Amino acid sequence: MTRYDNLASIIGDRIEQGLYTCGQRLPSVRALSLEHEVSISTVQQAYRVLEERRLIEARPKSGYFVSQHHEPAALPAMCRPAQRPVDISQWDLVLKLLRADPVDGMVHLGPGMPDISSPTLRPLNKELSRIALHPDLRGMTYGDISGAPALREQIARLLVDSGCLALPEDIMITTGCHEALSIAIHALCQAGDIVAVDSPSFHGVTQTLKAFGIKALEIPTDPVTGISLEALELALEQWPIKAIQVTPNCNNPLGYIMPDAHKHALLCLAARYDTPIIEDDVYGDLAYRYPRPHTIKSFDDDGRVLLCSSFSKTLAPGLRVGWIVPGRYMEKVIHMKYIGTGATALQPQLAVAEFVRQGHYQKHLRRMRARYQLNCDIMTDWVKSYFPPETRVSRPQGGFLMWIELPDRFDSLRLNRQLEKMAIQIAVGPIFSASGKYRHCLRLTYATQLTDEIEAAVKKIGETIKRQLAEVAT
Amino acid sequence: MTRYDNLASIIGDRIEQGLYTCGQRLPSVRALSLEHEVSISTVQQAYRVLEERRLIEARPKSGYFVSQHHEPAALPAMCRPAQRPVDISQWDLVLKLLRADPVDGMVHLGPGMPDISSPTLRPLNKELSRIALHPDLRGMTYGDISGAPALREQIARLLVDSGCLALPEDIMITTGCHEALSIAIHALCQAGDIVAVDSPSFHGVTQTLKAFGIKALEIPTDPVTGISLEALELALEQWPIKAIQVTPNCNNPLGYIMPDAHKHALLCLAARYDTPIIEDDVYGDLAYRYPRPHTIKSFDDDGRVLLCSSFSKTLAPGLRVGWIVPGRYMEKVIHMKYIGTGATALQPQLAVAEFVRQGHYQKHLRRMRARYQLNCDIMTDWVKSYFPPETRVSRPQGGFLMWIELPDRFDSLRLNRQLEKMAIQIAVGPIFSASGKYRHCLRLTYATQLTDEIEAAVKKIGETIKRQLAEVAT
Repeated sequence: MTRYDNLASIIGDRIEQGLYTCGQRLPSVRALSLEHEVSISTVQQAYRVLEERRLIEARPKSGYFVSQHHEPAALPAMCRPAQRPVDISQWDLVLKLLRADPVDGMVHLGPGMPDISSPTLRPLNKELSRIALHPDLRGMTYGDISGAPALREQIARLLVDSGCLALPEDIMITTGCHEALSIAIHALCQAGDIVAVDSPSFHGVTQTLKAFGIKALEIPTDPVTGISLEALELALEQWPIKAIQVTPNCNNPLGYIMPDAHKHALLCLAARYDTPIIEDDVYGDLAYRYPRPHTIKSFDDDGRVLLCSSFSKTLAPGLRVGWIVPGRYMEKVIHMKYIGTGATALQPQLAVAEFVRQGHYQKHLRRMRARYQLNCDIMTDWVKSYFPPETRVSRPQGGFLMWIELPDRFDSLRLNRQLEKMAIQIAVGPIFSASGKYRHCLRLTYATQLTDEIEAAVKKIGETIKRQLAEVAT
Repeated sequence: MTRYDNLASIIGDRIEQGLYTCGQRLPSVRALSLEHEVSISTVQQAYRVLEERRLIEARPKSGYFVSQHHEPAALPAMCRPAQRPVDISQWDLVLKLLRADPVDGMVHLGPGMPDISSPTLRPLNKELSRIALHPDLRGMTYGDISGAPALREQIARLLVDSGCLALPEDIMITTGCHEALSIAIHALCQAGDIVAVDSPSFHGVTQTLKAFGIKALEIPTDPVTGISLEALELALEQWPIKAIQVTPNCNNPLGYIMPDAHKHALLCLAARYDTPIIEDDVYGDLAYRYPRPHTIKSFDDDGRVLLCSSFSKTLAPGLRVGWIVPGRYMEKVIHMKYIGTGATALQPQLAVAEFVRQGHYQKHLRRMRARYQLNCDIMTDWVKSYFPPETRVSRPQGGFLMWIELPDRFDSLRLNRQLEKMAIQIAVGPIFSASGKYRHCLRLTYATQLTDEIEAAVKKIGETIKRQLAEVAT
């Protein structure tokens, strides 16, 4: 990250946090230069970045001001789920999202699909092509059950950025983060057990619980700091919870990054009740802030955290290359890997290892982080412009997903049916709850380039919502 | 298959079945030409094939004779497992097989690894390379949860050869046959249930049962006709069996092909007890006889059979491309796929689809079938030459695996420890039993070219076994 990016990020955070309010004059270029001990041109560059992000605007001869339109939208409310474990439903809705008919010209704002068109991915395609033709036929054998050693070495290096020290032999490669999470749950729990989850939560996890006959206990979750520790502690006292599953970094769908102190406190709580934590970090490398945030795993010194991640969101999901760092549960986890898939497709592993080793991964990340952050600002603006004024919007700190909450009387399933006819796809709220809550919410993806066509789609969504609210009110 | 291959196969079968006995004179070229209505040169070609396979020998001016040394070894005995469901053990031994230290110059006769060095595989590598560079970035997305439509179309076509009529939408792609089997078991059973398995049986299946807390009921299995229907019926009467898992074609490890009548009777029995069948057909395309044998699925008209297979044994395991045809259980199976891995690596799917579509698959199969059959004959000869006379050997009808039974006092685990020091790897008997039976058995792989080095290794195995038997006898 360059100096000016870093400075832009600091100023941007201050604006987001409300330290500089809407319309307020920002410090002069000279003042900032002195404060941060950087050159005048660095400050000017930083201000240009913030102008591009539409957070600030320059007024001739007066300096820089926080944008007039930058009044942050209200945040989603913390949910108040029923404090009892539930059997999971919603599979039909998840399947509908996965299976949406590929209508011609469909605008996909539903699935958590990254942008795979960046030129910074090209060296990966070249590497895949090279390995396919390699005369030693590497990539055609079963390979090590734990995954290619070359890739585990590179992942161990990457993990350092999240504060996590692991050896290649502490890591097992999986068929995406999906398999990592499934293995983690299966290794820890049996049918009838209870797992505590943040809420809203990723449907891949709740559906896995459902498949194994495990109940979910949804814990209220703050849209800025993550899972409520008070609520979780009450739950741990009251129920025999077998595992805690959370996504603390660039949460799906809320986008928050749990503060380090909160992560540490969560780990201490888990230790007190001797409960393992399944940590999903699949969006962690896409945090807008650099250096990237720590994982809970980075604080874990007794092997209680099973860290799950993949390259599906940072590179491309079709590779199916993920990993798990399961701490003290490695033996069980290898058994689950063996019985689940036996091995992971080998050529993609070798190609990714080489891509990372040659430094292309960091370059690609830098580009995607900047892109997604810019898109986040634009999408937030669009939602503020086109959605009804009561709309509450998450403030994503990374990734490319936005959570939107509307008044209780709003029905996202009905919206979805209406949008299907307009060839627009969204993710409906109830799939993010074990028990079908969040019917008044939806999730939007802003990964690809935000074209006029997408703006028109967002506008249509807003109008359809307004019509629905008006109808229900009358 | 050419005419002479076909004729050679008919004569070969007659010799295997003992219609022509050791040293006996075979019909004259002219007689065979008349009997089968083929040309003289076709018969001569067929006899040359059988000479190469060392089944027959030409004597100048006298004609062709069944080879003197072709006295078939005794078959393994039918096992008599305890008729009660058991919890599965043996994971430590399976892991040892998977994890065997790659010593320099190790001779691998243990894992079920096919030969991937054939030039007939080259178009597949080219296709993989081409798809990796394709500008439309196909292969980088999640793709359809059921797998690439192009591949499912090709598999539907291939299934016709096994007598099975299925539409692309009846097929779901999986991460190898491992995932297909795991999904099938998970879709049908819960912890505490009982599954009937042929015995000896593939360790991937028994370890999956173990992982799900399911008990295995090992059914006696004939080394020529497969699972004993009488024993299975008794078991179905006595126990609440949730599913029957069998590998009727080119069985692993016994190598038999269950006769069609037997397959049909098994299906009728399953229907009578309203029990689903999980059919593993992963070696089915490698049957030495052409056309390839039918699957049980091909007789199934009420969707009770879940057919599981992959390209891991026919093409290369590193692709991780398998499939399941789950009949009436499709809905459940898709859910299990979603929670297990979410999707299957996409580029290998697209490459295999194109490889099959262009006709390369059948060409490759023809070559590998002939190679494996030749290797089977050679390995059988070696075992007869170098192993003790009490040795019993399976008569594989396809694939590249040989099951060897020795007197009860023999210990394959001890053998394995001794062989490790000589850098030779075998698969020990007990991993093919849920309850650790078959300690006196071992499995050898004969997929790669059978070099002098491998012959020397087989000789060493034989000598080590003889020494062990002599020690235990004294």
